[in-house]
Formats: sequence, structure tokens, C-alpha cells
Amino acid sequence: MALTLEQLNRATPEQALQWLDGLYEHSPWVLGQALSERPFLSLAHLRHALAQVVRRAGADAQRGLIRAHPELAGPAMLAHSLSAASAREQTQAGLAQCSAEELARLRQLDADYQARFGFPFILALRGPRGSGLTRQQILACFARRLDNPPDFEHAEALRQIHRIAELRLNDRFGAQPRLGNDLWDWHERLAAHSDPGFAEQGQLTVTYLTDAHRACARTLSGWMRACGFDEVHIDAVGNVVGRYHASDPHARALLTGSHYDTVRNGGKYDGRLGILVPMVCVRELQRAGRRLPFGIEVVAFAEEEGQRYQTAFLGSGALIGQFDPAWLAQQDADGITLRSAMQQAGLCVADIARLQRDPARYLGFVEVHIEQGPVLGALDLPLGVVSSINGGLRLSGEIQGLASHAGTTPMGRRRDAALAVAELALYVEQRAAQDGDSVGTIGLLEVPGGSVNVVPGRCRFSLDLRAPVDAQRDALARDVLAQLERIAARRGLRYQLAETMRVAAAPCAPAWQRRWERAVARLGLPVWRMPSGAGHDAMQLHAIMPQAMLFVRGENAGISHNPLESTTSDDMQLAAEAFTELLHQLAEEQAEEHTGKAV
Amino acid sequence: MALTLEQLNRATPEQALQWLDGLYEHSPWVLGQALSERPFLSLAHLRHALAQVVRRAGADAQRGLIRAHPELAGPAMLAHSLSAASAREQTQAGLAQCSAEELARLRQLDADYQARFGFPFILALRGPRGSGLTRQQILACFARRLDNPPDFEHAEALRQIHRIAELRLNDRFGAQPRLGNDLWDWHERLAAHSDPGFAEQGQLTVTYLTDAHRACARTLSGWMRACGFDEVHIDAVGNVVGRYHASDPHARALLTGSHYDTVRNGGKYDGRLGILVPMVCVRELQRAGRRLPFGIEVVAFAEEEGQRYQTAFLGSGALIGQFDPAWLAQQDADGITLRSAMQQAGLCVADIARLQRDPARYLGFVEVHIEQGPVLGALDLPLGVVSSINGGLRLSGEIQGLASHAGTTPMGRRRDAALAVAELALYVEQRAAQDGDSVGTIGLLEVPGGSVNVVPGRCRFSLDLRAPVDAQRDALARDVLAQLERIAARRGLRYQLAETMRVAAAPCAPAWQRRWERAVARLGLPVWRMPSGAGHDAMQLHAIMPQAMLFVRGENAGISHNPLESTTSDDMQLAAEAFTELLHQLAEEQAEEHTGKAV
Repeated sequence: MALTLEQLNRATPEQALQWLDGLYEHSPWVLGQALSERPFLSLAHLRHALAQVVRRAGADAQRGLIRAHPELAGPAMLAHSLSAASAREQTQAGLAQCSAEELARLRQLDADYQARFGFPFILALRGPRGSGLTRQQILACFARRLDNPPDFEHAEALRQIHRIAELRLNDRFGAQPRLGNDLWDWHERLAAHSDPGFAEQGQLTVTYLTDAHRACARTLSGWMRACGFDEVHIDAVGNVVGRYHASDPHARALLTGSHYDTVRNGGKYDGRLGILVPMVCVRELQRAGRRLPFGIEVVAFAEEEGQRYQTAFLGSGALIGQFDPAWLAQQDADGITLRSAMQQAGLCVADIARLQRDPARYLGFVEVHIEQGPVLGALDLPLGVVSSINGGLRLSGEIQGLASHAGTTPMGRRRDAALAVAELALYVEQRAAQDGDSVGTIGLLEVPGGSVNVVPGRCRFSLDLRAPVDAQRDALARDVLAQLERIAARRGLRYQLAETMRVAAAPCAPAWQRRWERAVARLGLPVWRMPSGAGHDAMQLHAIMPQAMLFVRGENAGISHNPLESTTSDDMQLAAEAFTELLHQLAEEQAEEHTGKAV
Repeated sequence: MALTLEQLNRATPEQALQWLDGLYEHSPWVLGQALSERPFLSLAHLRHALAQVVRRAGADAQRGLIRAHPELAGPAMLAHSLSAASAREQTQAGLAQCSAEELARLRQLDADYQARFGFPFILALRGPRGSGLTRQQILACFARRLDNPPDFEHAEALRQIHRIAELRLNDRFGAQPRLGNDLWDWHERLAAHSDPGFAEQGQLTVTYLTDAHRACARTLSGWMRACGFDEVHIDAVGNVVGRYHASDPHARALLTGSHYDTVRNGGKYDGRLGILVPMVCVRELQRAGRRLPFGIEVVAFAEEEGQRYQTAFLGSGALIGQFDPAWLAQQDADGITLRSAMQQAGLCVADIARLQRDPARYLGFVEVHIEQGPVLGALDLPLGVVSSINGGLRLSGEIQGLASHAGTTPMGRRRDAALAVAELALYVEQRAAQDGDSVGTIGLLEVPGGSVNVVPGRCRFSLDLRAPVDAQRDALARDVLAQLERIAARRGLRYQLAETMRVAAAPCAPAWQRRWERAVARLGLPVWRMPSGAGHDAMQLHAIMPQAMLFVRGENAGISHNPLESTTSDDMQLAAEAFTELLHQLAEEQAEEHTGKAV
């Protein structure tokens, strides 16, 4: 019989400790401290309490916890002296069936890893869906993590330990993330469509209106129908729109969604999570035969990343009446115009203007998105509430000095363009850090036609500056540009700088942000407010209606725009539960409003 | 009748001033001060004295001197109110025949230039050979110089003013640089041979054993024969060797020369000057029917730049027995092996070993070379005596951090690989400057696959460190590597660093350096000792015999490995005169030695 949370909350400390024994390998101290915080509202609450104990314990105790774990396919496995849970996990991963060669490779990686970090390599052997990793996946992950910096890998080891505990806890409680697992499967199946040249290498790239992109749209519309949406169609820019009607045909609707296109060699969750989470919630409503006092309109935006054409936010832009016919003449890398790509896909350009939404018919816009950053992971939090989508400014620059012979030009007589960019980059780092929540990045950096023995005469660079509030971003930009001016004057250099993008900050609507906060709190999780450093479709809808976003923790320190982008079924389950909570809140509010009116 | 130096030295100050009137546009103060330093040993001495007056006068007086010059094709020309010399120069350059369009373009450039620098654009309208610049050349130079930093252009204006004075002085004294003009013509004619792909664009590229390269060898050997060398041949690596016999058939020889290959899109003087200067001197000896008590062996080295194959110093290396047969398997960009290129050129690989010289048969090695740096130009000195060829160390590095989202990764959580290189670059600058005569350069700098919105996860760079003494270079390298270690540790980054080249410093033989110093002093010029930052063929010969080098000032702030590399007939004349002085000294020493022996 599986344990229930109620039993755990009511049990004596000794009994509770016994029930949870082995969650953390040879480290019952973690359990003891966490259990003193009973009662738990949810398993998520318990998991967070456990993680907090480890967080507060400090680096030495953490290292002790890490070292309490056995090596993969190590002496303990061979000597059959693993803990029961470890033994089961290592067996499920097929480590006992390693060939001599694989075993030798594992032993070598183990030795290298221990030499570098001073603790054993730890990996949750069941993947995010709960199924086992293959031996190849394990070896690849091992080799990759060997390259991490030590403090990074210390944190990664702890994340893996919490994940192992989470999986073991699910077993004890017979609690499987049903919606999360479905979401996992959907993401996997959607990721099977990838553009030519990437698909062959198992990489995910879905750019606007390619065959893979259109296959995604067909797949999504099919799933929407299967979920029980009342109306499903693909609109004039390729957005997949699903509507789940309200109980009252005149009621307004909640608008939600995100994008299904990807960057080149991107991740499976970026954008798609915000389409699939609402879809799974609507499916559950439909299965329960339930209608809400408001409609739900889920839009899978066709284009957000601006990869094939310079048209970022084409999908959500169309909903706010932002489509410039001049874009139709843009060509992709193969010389295919946007117009002909749209015609080829059967989209009717003349209908785009009609996609503009009337805000009076909507309650507001919400978007679920993977965090794409390391903050939630570092805090052991599965969900975060977005306070504002940062305003951004991008510049493209070139500094000109004088290319000269690296051997014959004395240090005092140089006009080194790259050194000026070096100074600027370090200034940007320090100045952005001063603000606390601004970020500044020189992502492109190049000495064009440089040579080992030539003092750089030119240096090209990009500048990306972001802050939660426009005024803060502008002050940052002012200081950075003034510093560049000073550097160039002091070094006798010239420069050009061109603004390539300016996006206003989109603070989330306070009432809607509070709804997400309540939803997170009802799951038993602490509320963490954070700005979104990345741009999102919600920024577009911001122009015409209130918007608010929910972030979901990403694995691998929140890596994004990268095939390693990932999350777990358990975290996606929580996202779906939070979305459902939000729907409930809205339904209650609508009901109260209705009652109020009736009175 | 042309003036003579003797007349000038003996004249009253008033008379002397009158004779030189107009050398410096509306600025007789320059003349007055310089004349107080009479007597002058040479026109070069007088020119240097004039330049020193301007140098000592300070920036305000210099700006006054610059502003005393008329605009090109400006109001003064149109109103016929130019000084006589300016009027002649502007007329010779055909500025009076400018089309309306050209005049408008000149007026615009003039306006832009004055707005940027606060003084008129000054250009010696007669080219380095004394012939007029074309209007196209003038316009191109104008446009290019508009991009210079202000202090750079201030110095360039002064250099042009001294050059104008030099040309006017030559006219007054009826003194044409006869050898310099011949050298100018030879360089131009040799530069007519250029590799395919470059020749069409008027660019100079002569890489090892191409058709253009072999045409250069044929041209040089033809000229050597015409100069009266007794033996001329092309050796087994393609060096062109000319021998001018001593009066005594058993006497040792002076070895001299430099390379005739070039970098891609390089300059006309790099290397070739050191072949042609000795050639013109031998021609003069032969014309005078003169034999010296030692032979002269001029070698035009076939390969120094390592452009087609990774075989820098192939030509001079062969003379010290440095030829590795493994190199023969190297392929060029088209897959042609060195072996097959040599066979194709009719070179006999088996004979290379026999090219090794027996030091007992040589007095030593001297090399004339264009400076390839800004030092002599900045000091208004046409010649410099090399004290040492700097030791060099080249490294190729990559720093690895963690690529992450530029918007979502807080400043404190980044592993920015480029910022580490930025810190390193600024440290190299400061640390090399500390030594005074060390140089350190990061010439290659790149964030591979970087993107405007991604924190750089990798950064590649090169490191080039040089110093006149190996121990000094090694201390510099130690400090730089230790700093990299600290930066990487502090930022949590990994890095790889590989040494790609290490060349020992080659201090010039003191006795030979003194011979160059005496030769320069006898021309009436101050002796300026300087290390060579660039590597030269003399470094190779250094292994088996004493060596010493003479540097010749380059125009355009000493720019090199660039089509703008240039020098003047007057400076080349001085180089030929210094070489002749060196030959005289050696002859005297040999005679004394002989007499000594006889006694």
C-alpha cells in the first residue's frame, strides 16, 4: 500500500522517519530536519522542505551528502553492497550488464571525475519521464559534466540527489505525475519534427513554415481536437488556435499560449510548454465534462524566434495588428521570400489583418514558459512568478584603430581596437551587476581578418542590455555608451554603434501576477517573483491586454537554446496544476462577479 | 646654379635664410633655428636639424606650421595667391585641371577634414620617387586619412611637411637621390609580379614557387648579372645568389641579403629592400671598376614568410643546414605538396643539404630591412641600427565557460569566456608596457558561434609575446600565464593553451652593430639603436655567424604587411650610402688587418 501525505503528517517522528528512510542515501539527517516542518500541503511542499534542509546545511555537509553516494557501476555495485534503492536504480539502468569495455570506460570516467571534483559522479538514472537512461546517455552525460567548473558540478550533484529523492518519494507515495508524463510524451512527439539538415543529426530546428513547422501545426491541431477543444483552426500566419467554450456563450475568454517554432538546434520546451500545459488542462476539463464561466483560447504561435526571417514575434504580433506587409519581401537564406513561403503553405496574406483581437472580448493573457535561466534551479524551486518582462536594447558596434605589426609597434604607439572592446566588456559586466537585476552582454566579439602577429585594427561586437524597467535599462545604456566614448577618446580610436533592437519592458499586470502567486502558494510552494530576462509572446499581447507569466524550472542549470534544455515530468505536472489553480481562481472570481451583479 | 652644402655652411645667416626661404610654408622660424646648428655634414643632417626644430617647438607651434599650409585646390590656388613652391606643386599634380566634380569632391573632403582635425589636409604631391601623384591617388589618400585619429593625423601632417621640405631642398641643391630612384624603380618592377587572384586587383602577393615567385627570381638574377656580379645562380631552394669577387680570390666574403617572397596582399619593400640595396652598391663598385679585399655574396632568399607552406625561413634556413625532409609532404591550400612544387620548379631537393655555408669562409651577415614599425617615423629618422632581433613566443588559447541566455542569466551566475580574455588582454597590455621594450599582443580574438543574445561559452585567442632578450620574454610569459590561471580560477573557467612558436632572441654582434652605427654617423645622422620586433632572415644566420641589421624608415607610420607599406627614394638613397660606408669600413679594417699581418 502506498503512503499518503495525511498518514505522514499524522505519524510520530520515528514512524515518519522510517517511512522516508533511504530517500537520501545514508543521510537520515536531511529527513529529520525536514519532518519537523510538518504538516505538508503537498509532495511538492515536502520535496522543497527537504531541499531547503540541504541548502541550509552548508558546503561541508553537502559534500558529505554527495560523498555518501556510491559510484556508478562501482565497487559497491560489484560487491552487492549498494542500498536497496541504489541497487534497483543501477540494475534498471542496465549497469550490471555493462560490457567489459563499458565498465572500463565508466571506471576511467569515475577516476577522472573524482580526481577533478573530489566526490563521485551522481546522476538520477531514471530520466525526467521516469524511464531509465540508456548506458550511452549515461556515458555522454558523464563526459559532458567532467567539463563543468567545480562549484557548478557541486550544485549539479545536489540537484541530481534531490531528483533521485523525488523519484524515490513518488514510488513511496504511489504518486505518478500523470499530466506531467503526458506533457513529456507530447514534447517528445512534437520534437520528432525537425528541419532538414538538423533532423538527420537528431537536432531540433523548426523554423517558420518549413515542412517540419507545418507538421507541428497539424499535430497540434489534431491534439487540440482530441483534447476536446470546440473550435480548432490554423490562422493566416500559421498560428494554431483552439477554443474551449465558456458555459455562457457571451462570456469573455482567457487567452493563453506560446510559440512552437524553435531556434536552430534548440530545446524541446522553449515555447511549446506554454501551448501544451493549457491543452492538457483543457483536456482534463473536457474529460470531467466541465465548462468554466469564461472561454479558453489557446494559441500556438507560429513564429517567435525570428530565425528564418527577421520577423520575431510574427505569430503573437498578428494578434495585436502588428504585421508589416513590407516583411513579405524578406528572403530566407535560400532566397525564398516570406510571401512565397506563406503562399506555398496555403496561408492567405490578405486575412492577416483580421487576426487582430478585440481586447474587450478577453480577460487577459497568461503564458507558461520554461525559465531559460539558472535561477529557479539554484533555489530548488520548480515554479517562479514573473514580475516583468525585461526591456531590451541591442547594439551592433565596430571600433577602428590601426592594424600594425605586433612585433614592431611599441605598446605606447598602438591603436588596438580589441583592447577597447575588452575594456568596454569589463565595464558592462561591472555596471550591469551594480543594478542587481540588469544584465549586459557582449555576445558577438571578433577581430575581422585578425592575425596572430597583427595588432587588431578593427573589432566588431554586439551589446545586449536588459532591465525590468525601461528607465533602468536606459540609464545602463547611457553609462555604457559614455564609457565607450571615454575609452575611444583615451585610446585614439573611432567607432560606430547602431541600435538593432529596442523592446520596451512589459511589467506583468499586478492582478494577474497575484493570481499566479496564489496558484503557486496553493501547491504548497513558496512564491518566487522574478523578472524575465528573455522576450516572450506575452510582451506583444501586453500592448492590448493585461498579461502575466509563470516560469518552470529547467534542468541543467536552466540551459536554453540548446539541445540540453529540459525539465521533468514532475515540474511540468506542477505547472499544469498551477494553471488549473489559476482557472479555478478565475472561475470563482467570475462567479462572485456574477453573483455581485445579480445582487 | 644649384646651391652646395659648402656654400650654405659658409654663408651669413641672412644669406643662408634667404637661400632656404620657402622650404617650410610661411614659417621661416624653422630655418632660423636650424641654421644655428651649421655646419651640416650632409643634406640628411640639415633635414634632420630642421625636423628637430619642429619637434622641439611643441604642439601649438606645430599646429601653426600645419595651418600655414594652403588647402589642396583651395581658395588660394583658385585666387592664384599660393606660394611659388605650392603653386608649382599643385599645378604639377594637375589640381588646376580638376573637373567640377573632382573639385566638389575635394572641397567636401577638405571641409570634412578641417571639421575633424582643425587644420588643412597636407600631402606631399610628388610621390616618393619624385613623380607627381595622380588626382585619384590624392583623393584616395585624402579619404583614407580622414579616418585617422587626430593625434595620428597631426603627426602625419608634420611628416608630409618635412617631406615637402625635403623635395624642395633637393631642388635647391640639385641633389637627386640617384641610387634611391633606381631602387624605387626596381621595387616597382619587381612588384609587377604577383600571384593569380591578387595580380588582377593590383595587390602584391608572391608566395613560394608560384609563377610570380619564379618570375621574381629570374628578374633578380638578370639584374644581378647586369649589375656585374661575377657569379649568379638560383640554388636548390630557389634562393637567388650573386657573388662579387674579392680582389684576393682566397678572401672571405660578406654575406648579405633578405627575402623576396611576400605575405598575402603585402608591401613592396618588406625583404626586397635588403636584396636591392646591396645589389645597387655592387653595381656602383663594378661601374667604378673597384674590388674590395673581401667578396660580397648577396642572397635573395626564396621564402621567409611561411605563407604557402608552414615553412617560414626556408630560404635562409637552408644556409644553416636547417631543412627537414618531412616538410616535403606539406600541402598548400590546393593540396600541392612542397615536394611536387619544388620538382615543378626544377629544384633538386637532394642538393639542399649542400647549401649549408661554412662560417669560416664569411666575415659575417648583414641585412637591410624596412622597419615595419612607427618608431623611426615618429623620431624623424631615416635609419635605425638594430640592437637585437626580439625573441618571440606564440600561443594559441581557448577559454571555456558556459554559454547561457544573455537575458536570463544574472550577472553573478555567468561563466563568460570572453570576459576572461578581455581581462587577460588588458593585463598583457599593461605588463608588456612595464618592460619598456617588450610587446604583447592578442591578435586573434573570437567567440566561435557567438550570438548577440548568448553569454560567450567559449573564446579563442592568440598570444604573441616578444622581448629583446629571452629571459625578459620568458618572465613576461610567466606573468601572463600566471594571470590567466588566476582569472580562470576566479571566474570558474577552464582553458587550454598551446605554444605554437618559440624563437630565441638574436642579439646583434656588437662589432657589427658598431659598423652600422659608424656608417650612419658618417652620413651626418644621429645613431638610433632599437630592437627589431619582427623576425628576419638574420635570425637564422645568427646561428652560425655574427649578424647585424640596419632599419630604413617606412612611410605611413611604418605600416607593413599592407599595400600601404612604402619608403622614399631619399631614405633608400641613405640606406645605400650607409651600406657603402659599411663596405668602406670593412675594406679599411681588412687592409689594416692585412698590414698588421704583413708587419
